[in-house]
Amino acid sequence: MPISPLAPLQFPDMPPIEGLKLATAAAGIRYADRKDVLLALFGEGTAVAGVFTRSKCPSAPVDWCRAHLKGGSAAALVVNSGNANAFTGRHGREATRMTAQLAAAAVGCRVSEVFLASTGVIGEPLDASKFGEVMDRLVASAAPGDWQQAASAIMTTDTFPKGAAAIARLGSTPVTICGIAKGAGMIAPDMATMLAFVFTDAPVSKRVLQSVLKAGVIDTFNAVTVDGDTSTSDTLLAFATGAAARGAAKITTLSDLRLPALRKGFDAVLGNLAEQVARDGEGARKLIEIIVEGAVSKSSARRIALSIANSPLVKTAIAGEDANWGRVVMAVGKAGEPADRDRLSIWFGGIRVAHKGEREPSYDESAVSAVMKKPEILLKVALGMGRGRDRVLTCDLTKEYVAINGDYRS
Amino acid sequence: MPISPLAPLQFPDMPPIEGLKLATAAAGIRYADRKDVLLALFGEGTAVAGVFTRSKCPSAPVDWCRAHLKGGSAAALVVNSGNANAFTGRHGREATRMTAQLAAAAVGCRVSEVFLASTGVIGEPLDASKFGEVMDRLVASAAPGDWQQAASAIMTTDTFPKGAAAIARLGSTPVTICGIAKGAGMIAPDMATMLAFVFTDAPVSKRVLQSVLKAGVIDTFNAVTVDGDTSTSDTLLAFATGAAARGAAKITTLSDLRLPALRKGFDAVLGNLAEQVARDGEGARKLIEIIVEGAVSKSSARRIALSIANSPLVKTAIAGEDANWGRVVMAVGKAGEPADRDRLSIWFGGIRVAHKGEREPSYDESAVSAVMKKPEILLKVALGMGRGRDRVLTCDLTKEYVAINGDYRS
Repeated sequence: MPISPLAPLQFPDMPPIEGLKLATAAAGIRYADRKDVLLALFGEGTAVAGVFTRSKCPSAPVDWCRAHLKGGSAAALVVNSGNANAFTGRHGREATRMTAQLAAAAVGCRVSEVFLASTGVIGEPLDASKFGEVMDRLVASAAPGDWQQAASAIMTTDTFPKGAAAIARLGSTPVTICGIAKGAGMIAPDMATMLAFVFTDAPVSKRVLQSVLKAGVIDTFNAVTVDGDTSTSDTLLAFATGAAARGAAKITTLSDLRLPALRKGFDAVLGNLAEQVARDGEGARKLIEIIVEGAVSKSSARRIALSIANSPLVKTAIAGEDANWGRVVMAVGKAGEPADRDRLSIWFGGIRVAHKGEREPSYDESAVSAVMKKPEILLKVALGMGRGRDRVLTCDLTKEYVAINGDYRS
Repeated sequence: MPISPLAPLQFPDMPPIEGLKLATAAAGIRYADRKDVLLALFGEGTAVAGVFTRSKCPSAPVDWCRAHLKGGSAAALVVNSGNANAFTGRHGREATRMTAQLAAAAVGCRVSEVFLASTGVIGEPLDASKFGEVMDRLVASAAPGDWQQAASAIMTTDTFPKGAAAIARLGSTPVTICGIAKGAGMIAPDMATMLAFVFTDAPVSKRVLQSVLKAGVIDTFNAVTVDGDTSTSDTLLAFATGAAARGAAKITTLSDLRLPALRKGFDAVLGNLAEQVARDGEGARKLIEIIVEGAVSKSSARRIALSIANSPLVKTAIAGEDANWGRVVMAVGKAGEPADRDRLSIWFGGIRVAHKGEREPSYDESAVSAVMKKPEILLKVALGMGRGRDRVLTCDLTKEYVAINGDYRS
């Protein structure tokens, strides 16, 4: 697959995180000679938090992580691509346990301190013994991180590796936040909606880390959709090694005055990664930013924005560089949220094309056409109902999406 | 556009309806030299009933029909293709009034007895004066019906005209039910989801006719989806001329013992038309019948069936003739309805591919592949939760859908 035309120009500079080592290997899960396993090793006392898919049919690794989050501390993370270990029944549960046991033995930690994520085909049994062949090597080679290798090892139909970093200051103590993510299809906002892992050396309790993560996904990963399809494997895990403390007290309460700075850094990393997922939407040629304002509430604006973002007719029109705002009206109308046709206004790329329920009198098709040729399209809808506002990112729906997904397994 | 490979072999034989005359004309609404107006004329005392889109941004003709249904009697129906007269503001309201006035003057009836429907592009002003040029000719040429001409005049992106007929016996009195429909894209089940008009000579009150229609759409038009997008113009109108009475008493109560036979005939016509809409889904190459059983209720089964039917990943997999049941698991999981991964079984074309949360042990890819090559695919899901069952029709998602909708306006 060629790299998405919407990809960032390069993988970002990302510093190592104290207390974290990374390693990758080719275990032959699905394809030969492709890095398909990522191991992350954490220093003692690393806190862990997570949010997961709301699918009623979650994968075995999602079940595993949910069960072991209660412990709140992590020693290792094992991620594989090529096989999602989802809908694999008893065998799937055994595969997660075997993977965790292999990692725990190699690392020298408790099984419950190993976190797992798998991505790839659903329903195929995962042969976890393959991890045994590479685990010792992974542990031996783990080093303060080659982030690009790590991000590449977890890719499936992604066309580029996704990473993002931020620095936050907790009082006088600088801390680093680094994240990697994968995701290109089966992307709909419902908790984490993809695999993403965020690492920080900030000293923060698991409870506070969970709060930071849960609030952070609302306007980042949960505000991105590619195709409205929610994965069985969506996993976002955050690990805080605490190594940056250097005498600074651990953040253990939500009222800690240093917390807003940490949240800001987290939100920046999550938002950056989420945008990269939209930029790598399967077959995407256009990044679409949808802003809905004047709704009766933020949640109403979100539902309308998602109705637009998931409409095949809106997405195919934009693929065809057609400012077909009539389809935007359709998508607003079908959302089921309070809206009044005669108060509705619509803009493409800053040009108002419809105003208060009618085509803009000065509508200039050529000006709008020029906007539609750009790779990034801003689509704004004003409802005139209230003060609710929200923003969602998506991409267009192209023939390439159909091609990619019509023969993914074959 | 070539005719859908899923089209019926021929337009059905449909008898005339006593008390009904049809006429078509080319008014040049959007394209020159294409029949784009249908006029239906009704005998005195014709009862009318209707169901409409649930869009919050309905078209002007939908508003018009809703307002005039209260009167309950119809003298004429005017339908145009080429322009939906939706999101056209004050101008759109004036266009509906002008159309009704032109028809009322030519027919010699009250304006409130004229029913209207428009289909085509959203947001373009409709020049209703064009109807003035053809209205007298339409009235003069109206005759007991050429159904195929009528069904053709209301087409937009449809590749074939859609008609269906049934005979019902009210006691010893045979009555005829004939329907026509249009719809290929922007099809999602939310009331009528397209334009459809059903005519009968049965003697039935408007209140009973409304009940027959409302119950009839649940498992027909509302159980069909092409792309999950709900039109602003969805309209299903039923007209009962009563001409077949010949002494038989009018059905005026829901307890009338002759009503079940009438309902059955209506349901057959509605179901037949709805299936034809799925067969003409834009770009469709496969008709997909989705049966969900073992859900906690019928409505839960419906929501799960629609989640599968509207999943781009399921639809593209079937376009690629890939029995990717992992994506079916995904779609079940994202529906948000009670489901248990470990009790889930899935069949393609009668072959069980997954059983109780795991791949079928005897899974034979070649047998399943043969099933997937057929033009009609049966996809069954058993949840093992309860006794709720439902059925939904849809079609696959192909590159042609993207092509059709990427340059519809240009």
